[in-house]
Amino acid sequence: MEDLRSTISAFIQERDWEQFHSPKNLAMALSVEVAEIVEHFQWLTEEESQNLLPEKLAEIREEIGDVMIYLTELADSLGIDPVEAAKAKVAINGQKYPAEVLRGKASKYSEY
Amino acid sequence: MEDLRSTISAFIQERDWEQFHSPKNLAMALSVEVAEIVEHFQWLTEEESQNLLPEKLAEIREEIGDVMIYLTELADSLGIDPVEAAKAKVAINGQKYPAEVLRGKASKYSEY
Amino acid sequence: MEDLRSTISAFIQERDWEQFHSPKNLAMALSVEVAEIVEHFQWLTEEESQNLLPEKLAEIREEIGDVMIYLTELADSLGIDPVEAAKAKVAINGQKYPAEVLRGKASKYSEY
Amino acid sequence: MEDLRSTISAFIQERDWEQFHSPKNLAMALSVEVAEIVEHFQWLTEEESQNLLPEKLAEIREEIGDVMIYLTELADSLGIDPVEAAKAKVAINGQKYPAEVLRGKASKYSEY
Repeated sequence: MEDLRSTISAFIQERDWEQFHSPKNLAMALSVEVAEIVEHFQWLTEEESQNLLPEKLAEIREEIGDVMIYLTELADSLGIDPVEAAKAKVAINGQKYPAEVLRGKASKYSEY
Repeated sequence: MEDLRSTISAFIQERDWEQFHSPKNLAMALSVEVAEIVEHFQWLTEEESQNLLPEKLAEIREEIGDVMIYLTELADSLGIDPVEAAKAKVAINGQKYPAEVLRGKASKYSEY
Repeated sequence: MEDLRSTISAFIQERDWEQFHSPKNLAMALSVEVAEIVEHFQWLTEEESQNLLPEKLAEIREEIGDVMIYLTELADSLGIDPVEAAKAKVAINGQKYPAEVLRGKASKYSEY
Repeated sequence: MEDLRSTISAFIQERDWEQFHSPKNLAMALSVEVAEIVEHFQWLTEEESQNLLPEKLAEIREEIGDVMIYLTELADSLGIDPVEAAKAKVAINGQKYPAEVLRGKASKYSEY
């Protein structure tokens, strides 16, 4: 992660793009890149989404890369490590969605 | 990352949620979580987005955690490591957007 | 539509919210409201999405209302009528995706 | 609106696309089209977003058309009229966000 963070940071600085990369704009760019993942899946059945052709998978891998880049940069601009934030959130979710209560249900916390 | 991946995987299995977590559905959930980040920024100026209050920042950290969780799980379901995918994509972007040509411009590749 | 447009415009003015409602911010708000629709569908099968319970449908109707409100306001801020824009786009799409070629295929224009 | 609804419906039937257009999939497609609007605004300042060049505006008009098409089709598949849903939601919002309390504040209902 530290590698990735510093590579992205150098990439942005070399292009003088810090001026455009406010957290607000990075959040927008993140949402646009996620939509490029969604676009690959929109007309597939769930089963098809589990059995992608290699060339489709390669395209989605690039989109996942783009999402990870913007997530890392957004988080970095706010002094946050996304992997640490995820670990902390898994712990919170473990309390919000107790395994014994929710087994096999997709219901959200607010609905059960 | 490997830590995070296996923690999420165990979390899902304990709740029998694999049945809901097709790549298609995970892509949708990822887009929903990203929108929860965007929601925090939608009415802020760019400058305000760079000067968040601690409690707002703590909320956004949780949303970033959720996005990272779904991104990791989606990538894992496709056999992809998001950090490796991001590093590979930074290299591709370096060729698509050469620093000497694009310095200070937000133009996309297709526009210059 | 003209009714709706002027009702929304009055609503915003009464609250002095024009200052926040730049096209950029309205585009963000639109994406957040669409995600609230997506959230209702993310764990449903396609078949379940075609057979919603009345209370779920009522909630989605409210979200569709919110999306339509922001779409109308965004379009209005740019001098665009969304219904006219849609009619014009259907005509363009009719040429991009000829019925006789694409019957029964979800492929995008760029893929066939 | 009724014109638009029936034109879209004929367009889909001529291409045998009903099979792909479950409400779940239409919600995904709607989110993808909204992201294409957001993409136009992501690196602009709010002020720039209020002063678009004619060719940019023409592109955004097409994207607004696409969003309106999918919103109409999604709503139609659920038996909902999006304009009526919006009018009903403006009335609800009028009670949730009273003008006299919220004038000039972007705060959401839940925050004041």
